[in-house]
Amino acid sequence: MQAEFTDERAWNQFHQPRNLLLAMVGEVGEVAELFQWRGEVAEGLPDWSESERERLAQELSDVLIYLVELAEKCRVDLPQAVLRKMALNRLKYPASKVHGSAKKYTEYKD
Amino acid sequence: MQAEFTDERAWNQFHQPRNLLLAMVGEVGEVAELFQWRGEVAEGLPDWSESERERLAQELSDVLIYLVELAEKCRVDLPQAVLRKMALNRLKYPASKVHGSAKKYTEYKD
Amino acid sequence: MQAEFTDERAWNQFHQPRNLLLAMVGEVGEVAELFQWRGEVAEGLPDWSESERERLAQELSDVLIYLVELAEKCRVDLPQAVLRKMALNRLKYPASKVHGSAKKYTEYKD
Amino acid sequence: MQAEFTDERAWNQFHQPRNLLLAMVGEVGEVAELFQWRGEVAEGLPDWSESERERLAQELSDVLIYLVELAEKCRVDLPQAVLRKMALNRLKYPASKVHGSAKKYTEYKD
Repeated sequence: MQAEFTDERAWNQFHQPRNLLLAMVGEVGEVAELFQWRGEVAEGLPDWSESERERLAQELSDVLIYLVELAEKCRVDLPQAVLRKMALNRLKYPASKVHGSAKKYTEYKD
Repeated sequence: MQAEFTDERAWNQFHQPRNLLLAMVGEVGEVAELFQWRGEVAEGLPDWSESERERLAQELSDVLIYLVELAEKCRVDLPQAVLRKMALNRLKYPASKVHGSAKKYTEYKD
Repeated sequence: MQAEFTDERAWNQFHQPRNLLLAMVGEVGEVAELFQWRGEVAEGLPDWSESERERLAQELSDVLIYLVELAEKCRVDLPQAVLRKMALNRLKYPASKVHGSAKKYTEYKD
Repeated sequence: MQAEFTDERAWNQFHQPRNLLLAMVGEVGEVAELFQWRGEVAEGLPDWSESERERLAQELSDVLIYLVELAEKCRVDLPQAVLRKMALNRLKYPASKVHGSAKKYTEYKD
């Protein structure tokens, strides 16, 4: 669907991998701006206004849209890669070994 | 599925929104490192080795995993938000008006 | 000094602006990884070990090194630009008007 | 000088390390947006307009301002850390060994 959007506008010429990567970095920056002066933010964003939530939903969507396009241009099958990565993570961090341990958690690195 | 993975490890305590956001920034940084000294990279990554492609697939997956979790902790319905954002983009950048125009393209901002 | 380092290694060929920008994004990602699972972190990093502090000092240095090189390759006089930007910020956010106001603060945007 | 600016506005309360880090991520995102749809960009930015250059100078300045403040709040002596890091890099990448080698370069990691 996003591919069709890009085609209709003849924007494929701009959608090389590094362009898309920088566009994704830009959108991640916009998400960061929404969180930057707030100190810790609780699950569910209790103090956020409706318009702040909507803005966040839009910026997270932009990150996803560019991420999916970047994966496509790189010929990465993202849904399949995620399943494989999650299986890998299960092996790397066995539940029995790392249960509730912040210490171990911070020492691990994806 | 990722939620189950987190629960089994009692890692929910670490998965506040800003923690997840910084984790996502870290993974975007790892994607950037794969592209950093290459100059322009063509669609399909013609000169990349199998292990570089696999590494990229893993890092893109990590970005997606944290993005999805971040959206969940923020109570953002990401699939629905993306559809809405794509509809918005169709209105903002009508195909007839922006067709193939780099100039217009770079002036617009998501 | 960094320019000399790059010259000696004949690495100038890799130091085009977008390469350096992506390298900087990678280093910012490494800083983010040091802060990602900690929740709020207090000024002075009271609970950080010596080796974590040293690691942070190194990653912040890497960000600065690439930032300075990126500015050079873009012919931006960074010290002068910073002074100008700080003067601009003084006009944009007059102390008398925004004193201690989180509300105003979060609404402003650099 | 930036410290004085922050004090006058009683903004220290907002300048905890993670707030500043996210602010820096936001500014890096704005730099990325300036480079995102351009394909490779040559040294000196030959095709950029005066206003694009000025915008870049401002965004790079914002990155530096937040980087310096972040280092201060973390009690990292950034100028000294940079000198130490550059000395380390000289040991890690001896000029004689890595001269002009893209291959070695991409395999190394800062």
